Amino acid sequence: MPSSHFSNGDSESLLRLPLLSSQRSIVNSTSQVAIVGSNVSPIESLDYEVCENEFVKLDWRRRGKAQIFQFIFMKWLLCFFIGMIVCLVGFCNNLAVENLAGIKFVVTSNMMLERRFLLAFLVFFISNLVLTLFAATITALIAPTATGSGIPEVKAYLNGVDAPGIFTIQTLIVKIIGSITAVSSSLLIGKAGPMVHTGACVAALLGQGGSKRYGLTWKWLQFFKNDRDRRDLIICGSAAGMAAAFRAPVGGVLFALEGMASGWRSALLWRAFFTAAIVAILLRAMIDLCLSGRCGLFGKGGLIMFDAYSASVSYHLTDVPPVFLLGVIGGILGSLFNLILSKVLRIYNFVNEKGTIFKILLACVISIFTSCLLFGLPWLTSCRPCPPDPTEPCPTIGRSGIYKKFQCPSNHYNDLASLIFNTNDDAIRNLFSKNTDDEFEFRSVFIFFILCFFLSIFSYGVVAPAGLFVPVIVTGASYGRIVGMLLGKNSSLNHGLYAVLGAASFLGGSMRTTVSLCVIILELTNNLLLLPLIMMVLFISKTVGDAFNANIYDIIMKAKGLPYLGTHAELYTRQLTVGDVVTGPLQTFNGIEKVRNIVFTLKTTGHNGFPVIDEPPISEAPVLFGIILRDHLLTLLKNKAFLSLPIATSTEVFSKFSADDFAKKGSSRVTLKIEDIQLSDEEMDMFIDLHPYANASPYTVVETMSLAKALALFRGLGLRHLLVVPKFPGRSPVVGILTRHDFTPEHVLGLHPFLVRNRGNKLRFFSTLA
Amino acid sequence: MPSSHFSNGDSESLLRLPLLSSQRSIVNSTSQVAIVGSNVSPIESLDYEVCENEFVKLDWRRRGKAQIFQFIFMKWLLCFFIGMIVCLVGFCNNLAVENLAGIKFVVTSNMMLERRFLLAFLVFFISNLVLTLFAATITALIAPTATGSGIPEVKAYLNGVDAPGIFTIQTLIVKIIGSITAVSSSLLIGKAGPMVHTGACVAALLGQGGSKRYGLTWKWLQFFKNDRDRRDLIICGSAAGMAAAFRAPVGGVLFALEGMASGWRSALLWRAFFTAAIVAILLRAMIDLCLSGRCGLFGKGGLIMFDAYSASVSYHLTDVPPVFLLGVIGGILGSLFNLILSKVLRIYNFVNEKGTIFKILLACVISIFTSCLLFGLPWLTSCRPCPPDPTEPCPTIGRSGIYKKFQCPSNHYNDLASLIFNTNDDAIRNLFSKNTDDEFEFRSVFIFFILCFFLSIFSYGVVAPAGLFVPVIVTGASYGRIVGMLLGKNSSLNHGLYAVLGAASFLGGSMRTTVSLCVIILELTNNLLLLPLIMMVLFISKTVGDAFNANIYDIIMKAKGLPYLGTHAELYTRQLTVGDVVTGPLQTFNGIEKVRNIVFTLKTTGHNGFPVIDEPPISEAPVLFGIILRDHLLTLLKNKAFLSLPIATSTEVFSKFSADDFAKKGSSRVTLKIEDIQLSDEEMDMFIDLHPYANASPYTVVETMSLAKALALFRGLGLRHLLVVPKFPGRSPVVGILTRHDFTPEHVLGLHPFLVRNRGNKLRFFSTLA
Repeated sequence: MPSSHFSNGDSESLLRLPLLSSQRSIVNSTSQVAIVGSNVSPIESLDYEVCENEFVKLDWRRRGKAQIFQFIFMKWLLCFFIGMIVCLVGFCNNLAVENLAGIKFVVTSNMMLERRFLLAFLVFFISNLVLTLFAATITALIAPTATGSGIPEVKAYLNGVDAPGIFTIQTLIVKIIGSITAVSSSLLIGKAGPMVHTGACVAALLGQGGSKRYGLTWKWLQFFKNDRDRRDLIICGSAAGMAAAFRAPVGGVLFALEGMASGWRSALLWRAFFTAAIVAILLRAMIDLCLSGRCGLFGKGGLIMFDAYSASVSYHLTDVPPVFLLGVIGGILGSLFNLILSKVLRIYNFVNEKGTIFKILLACVISIFTSCLLFGLPWLTSCRPCPPDPTEPCPTIGRSGIYKKFQCPSNHYNDLASLIFNTNDDAIRNLFSKNTDDEFEFRSVFIFFILCFFLSIFSYGVVAPAGLFVPVIVTGASYGRIVGMLLGKNSSLNHGLYAVLGAASFLGGSMRTTVSLCVIILELTNNLLLLPLIMMVLFISKTVGDAFNANIYDIIMKAKGLPYLGTHAELYTRQLTVGDVVTGPLQTFNGIEKVRNIVFTLKTTGHNGFPVIDEPPISEAPVLFGIILRDHLLTLLKNKAFLSLPIATSTEVFSKFSADDFAKKGSSRVTLKIEDIQLSDEEMDMFIDLHPYANASPYTVVETMSLAKALALFRGLGLRHLLVVPKFPGRSPVVGILTRHDFTPEHVLGLHPFLVRNRGNKLRFFSTLA
Repeated sequence: MPSSHFSNGDSESLLRLPLLSSQRSIVNSTSQVAIVGSNVSPIESLDYEVCENEFVKLDWRRRGKAQIFQFIFMKWLLCFFIGMIVCLVGFCNNLAVENLAGIKFVVTSNMMLERRFLLAFLVFFISNLVLTLFAATITALIAPTATGSGIPEVKAYLNGVDAPGIFTIQTLIVKIIGSITAVSSSLLIGKAGPMVHTGACVAALLGQGGSKRYGLTWKWLQFFKNDRDRRDLIICGSAAGMAAAFRAPVGGVLFALEGMASGWRSALLWRAFFTAAIVAILLRAMIDLCLSGRCGLFGKGGLIMFDAYSASVSYHLTDVPPVFLLGVIGGILGSLFNLILSKVLRIYNFVNEKGTIFKILLACVISIFTSCLLFGLPWLTSCRPCPPDPTEPCPTIGRSGIYKKFQCPSNHYNDLASLIFNTNDDAIRNLFSKNTDDEFEFRSVFIFFILCFFLSIFSYGVVAPAGLFVPVIVTGASYGRIVGMLLGKNSSLNHGLYAVLGAASFLGGSMRTTVSLCVIILELTNNLLLLPLIMMVLFISKTVGDAFNANIYDIIMKAKGLPYLGTHAELYTRQLTVGDVVTGPLQTFNGIEKVRNIVFTLKTTGHNGFPVIDEPPISEAPVLFGIILRDHLLTLLKNKAFLSLPIATSTEVFSKFSADDFAKKGSSRVTLKIEDIQLSDEEMDMFIDLHPYANASPYTVVETMSLAKALALFRGLGLRHLLVVPKFPGRSPVVGILTRHDFTPEHVLGLHPFLVRNRGNKLRFFSTLA
C-alpha cells in the first residue's frame, strides 16, 4: 500500500512500523516457467552486474598489459569469426533454398508444360510434405527450442531472461537445416528470424568456447566468462544474422539495437557495426563467385536485394494523402495480424501440449493445406495474353520470372501463378518491380493478399524454424499493390512503389520498429530517394498499430511467459514502495558460515544469491557485507576451501582457485549441482570464510524507495538481485531481495489487487507513445 | 586508498574504523568553471532523476486521462514544430549562403572575364572581410556562446553539464545569422555543426515555452518542467539539425544517438526519427518549390546531396588493399588533425583572453589570410585546355561548375580555381564527381589538400559559428583523390569514388563515429552499393585514429573544461571505494528545520541538494528521509510555508503551491536567488516541514561500494546527487554526497596521486577499443 506519512496525525507511529513485517512470509507466486520453442522450461535470470569480490580484484590487479590486450584482441577476433560464420551460414542457407525450391519448381513446371497436371501436383505436394515433415521432425525431436523465429527468445535473453537451451549446438544445427527445408517446402515462413537466432547462437557458442556437451570446446576461445560479455557478443551476432538475411548491414545493426537489445553503449554499436561489415564484405565476395554461374539455380534472386528502384523516382506533396492512407490501413492490418496470430498460437499450444506426434502432425496438416492452396488457386484466374514487348521472356522459361505459364496456352501467362507458384523472394521481387502496373489483375493480387495474410498466420506456429519478416513483407506488398490499383489514375506513383510502401506499412504495423525497418527497406530497394515516403508510412502505421496492441515480438514473449522487463514504468509503480512488493523468506549467511548450514540452504532453496551478513563478534553490530552467488558457493564446497575454526582466511587460500572457477559457466545443461557434492560429517562441521568471495559492492535500495525508481536501477544496470535495506536501524541489515519476478506486473498486481481497477485499458497506448 | 579487509590480522580494527573520518573536511578542489563558446562560465549539473516527493505524487494522482493525453500530444506537437522550424532555418541558411556567396563569385568572375584582376581581388577581399567582421562582431558582442560548432556543448548538456547561455534566444539568432555570414565569407568552416546547435537551441527554447528574458513565452508551451523531458527534446532537435544540414534524416537520427546522446531509449529513437522525417518531407517540398528557379542562385547545389553515384559501381576483392591503405592514412591524418587543432585552440585561447577586440581582430586576420590564399594560389597552376566533349560548359558560365575560367584564355580552364574559387559544397561536388579522372592535375589537388588541411584548423577557433564537418569532408575528399591519382592504373576504382572514400576515412579518423557517418555518407552520395567499402574505410580509420588520441569533440570538451562523464570506467575506479573519494563538509537539514538555519546554509554554500534527516523525537534514531533541492527550498521560503511550531504539516499547505512552483525553471539567467528573499526576524524563528517536498526516494550507495559501480549508477540513471550512507550503524545516516565532480579523473587522481603512475599512457587506446 502506498505509504502516506503526512496525511494524518498517526505519522509517528507509522514511521516506526517496520514496513515489511506484514509480508515477510509471502512467497513469490508468479510462474517461473515459460514456453521456449514449443516446450515448457524453467527460467533463470541473467546477471549483467560485475561481481566485485576480493578474489576477482586480486585477479584484475595481477593482469598485465598483455592480458588486457589479449582480452581486447579476443573480443574483436570473436566478432570477426561471428561475422564470417554467420555470413557463410546465410549464404549456404540461401544457396540451399534456391536450389531445393528451384529444382522443385523446375520439375513441376516442366511437367505442367507437358500438361501432366496431376503428376505435377503430386510431385509438388509430396516434396513439400517430405520437406516439412523433415523440418518438423528434427525440430520436435532434437531441438524444440529451434521452433519459431527465435527473435522473442533472443530479445528476452538480452533483457536478462535465460531460457534454457536456446543457444546449444543442437538448436543451432536444427535451426539452420530446419529453416532451409521448411522454407523450401513452400510454407509461407521467412528465414530472417531464424537467421537472427542463428547469429545469436553462433555468437553464444563461440563466446563460451564451443559446445560443452559434445566436448567441442577450445580453451583459447573460453575467454568471456560472464553474462555481460556474452550479451555483447550476442547483440553482435543478432546484427550479423539480420545483415546476412537481408544483405542489409546497417539495417541489421539498427535492428539489433532498436528491436533486440535492452541496453546500449556506443562501443557496442561499433562492434556490431564491425561484425555486420564483415558479413557485408564477405557476402559481396561470395556473390562475385556466384555471378559466374557456379552456384546452380542460385541466381540474382538468391540474396534478397530488390534493387527495383535504382533509377530516380519522382513524387510530390500531392502523393502524401494516398501514402497516409496506406499507413493507416497498414497499421490496422498489422495490429489485426498480431491479434489473430496470438489467438492462433494459443490454439496451437493446446495441440502442442498433447505430445510430439501431434506437433508434427499439425505441421503436416499445414503443409498439405498450403500445397493444395498454392496449386489450386491459380486455376481460378483466367490466362492473360503476353504483353507485346515484354522486358522478360513471356511466358517465363525456367524458374523465376514475372510471367509464369502454369496451365495457360502459349503466349499467355497466369498472373496469380507468378506470385503464388514461386519462392517468396521472387514473389516480392515481382510485386516490387516497377512498370508492371498492367501485369497483374486486381482479382489475382487480392486473392494473393488474402492467401498470404492467413497462411502466414497459420504457418508461424508450426514446430519448425519460421520467421515472420518475409511473410509480412509479401503480405504488405500485395496489399500495397491493391491500394495502388484502387487509386488507379488518381496517383502518379507506380504500383511497384505502392508495393514497397505497403510492405513498409505492414511491417511497421506489426513489428513496430521504425528506424531499423526504414533502413532495411532502403537497403532492400537500394534507393535513398524513397526515404521520406518510407519514413512517413512507417511512422503512421506504427502509431496506428500501437493504438490497438503491442508489437508482435512482445505479444509472443508474453504468450510464452518470458518475464521481459520493459522500459516503461507503469503509473502504479510510482505509488508503491519497494517494501510493498518484496517477498520473503530471506536466506542469509554469516560472514564465516558453517558448511552444514550452507549445504542445507542450497539443498532446500533454489535461490541464486544470498546476502552475507557480518554479526558480532566479527563486527560490532549486524552489518551487510555483500552478496554471494550460488555458483560460487558450489565452487567453494567442491574445492573444500574449509576452515576448522571460524576465523578470517588469509589470501593464501586463493591459490586453491583459478579465476575460471568463479567464472560463469556457459548456458549448457551440464552445470554443477549441490547433489553432486559429497561431504563427510567432519567437513560439514567446518567453516567457510565467505568474505573474499562475496560481491562486496552490491546495489541496495532502502525499503521506502519507490518501485519505479528501483525498477529503473534494476533494469538500467541489468541486475539479477537488488538488496533491500531497512530504513530504520536496529533490524536485520537486509530485509529482502528483489529479483526480476518481483517487478512483473502479475506479481505486483497479485499483491495489490486494488491497483488493477486503476489501470486504464487504454493506458498502454499512452505509455507506448510516451 | 583501496580497502583490503582480509590481507592482514588487523581486519577487525579496520572494519570498525569509519572510512570517511580522515577526509571529512576535504573540499572538492576541481574547477567548476569551463569555457563556453569563447568565455569562461561557471558550470552547474543537470538532474535527470525524477524528483518523487509527496507533493508531486499528489499532483500525479490528480491528473486525469485528459492531462496524460495532453502531455503526450504536446510531446509530439513540439517535435513537429522543432522539425518544421529547423527545416525552415536550414533551408533559409542554404538559400542565403548560396545567394550571398553566389553574388560574390558572379561579380568577381565577371570582373576577371574583363581581366580587371585587381578590382576583382579587392571586391573578393573586402566582401569576405566585411562578412567575417560582421559575423565575429555579433558573436563576440551579443552571444559568445554561439562560437564554434556547438556540438561539444550540446553533447556535454546531454551528459548532464549545464553550460549557461547555450540555449538562449540570442545564441540562436547569432548562430543562424553568424553561420550564414561566416560561411559566405569563404572561411573554410562548415554549417553542419551550427545547424545541430541551432536545432538543439530551437528544441530547448520551445521546450521551455520561449525566451523568459524577452517575455516571449507561451503558457501552453510551458509543459515540460524538468531536465529529463528537455533532454529528450534536445536530442530530437540535434537529429533535426543534422538532418537539415546534410539532407540526411536517418544519418541525423543516428548521429544524435551515437555522437551526442549519453543515454538512449527505444521511444526516444522513434521521436527523433519523427522529427527527422518532418525535416526530410518539408525539405523535399521546399526544393520542389525552388526547382522552378524562384530561389535566386540557389540551384541544384543548394542542399548538399552529391548523388554522384546513382549508377551502379562495380568493385571487387582486389580493390580492398588500396581502400585499406586509404583507411590507415585517413586515421593517421585525422588524429594529426585533432592534435594540431587542439594546440591551435590553446593558442587562440591566449588571444581570446585579452578581450573582445582581440577576438574580432583574430577573425579578421584569418579572413584576410584566407582571401589572399584563395585568390592567389590558382595563379600558381597552369591553364588546361577544355576537354573535347565536356559534360558541362567549359569554361563554366555563371557560378558553380567544374571548369572555372579564372585567369585562363578562352577554351581553357584553371583546375585549382575550380576547387578553390567556389563554395565548399561545390568543391566537394567537383571532387566527388565521377568520370573526371583527367580533369584535375595532381599538383592542383595536392595544393588544395594542404590548403584545406591547415585552413580548416586555423579557421575553426575564430569567434564565429563554425562547423567541422564540411572542412573535414573537403580535406578528406582531396586526400582521397590524391591517393587515387597515385595508384593510377593499379586500381579499377575511379577518382571520384576515391574522393568519397577519402572523405569517409578522414571523417572517421577525426570524429570517430561510425554508423552515423556511414549512413550520412550513403545519404550524401545516394548509393547503397558503396556500403561495404565505406564501412571498411570508416572502421579502419577509426581504429587507427583511436590509437593516437580521442575524438575531436571529446578533445574540445576537455580543452573547454566541460566535465563530461564517459561510459568507460577507468581501471583504478575498481580499486577505490566511494568512501575514498567523497568529500565534505556535508550540509544536512532536519525533517522539520528552522527557517534561520535554512537561510544561513543557502547563503553560505552553493550546494544544490541537501539530505533531510529525521532525528529524535520525530524518529527513534537519526534516519535519512530524503534529499531536498535548493530550488525547492527557495520556493518554500518565497511562499513562506512556515510553521510556528516544529510539528508535521497537513496536506492543506499544498494549496499554497502549484506544480509549477516546483518545476525546474528554464535555462534562463533569471532565476530566484536567496538574496532576493526578505524575511522578518519572526519568520526566521519559524519552522518548515521539509518532508512533503523532499525527494523521499533518493538513490544511495554504501561507503564501501566500489567507485566503478557507483559511477555506473550515477551515469546510467543521469543523477546529479548520489547519497553515500555509512556501512556501520551508529553514525550519521548519510556521510556524504557524490556529484559529477567527485567522479572526474582530476579529482580522484588529485586525492590519490599514487594512482597516476599506475595509469598507462596507452590504456586509453585499450579502453576505447574495449
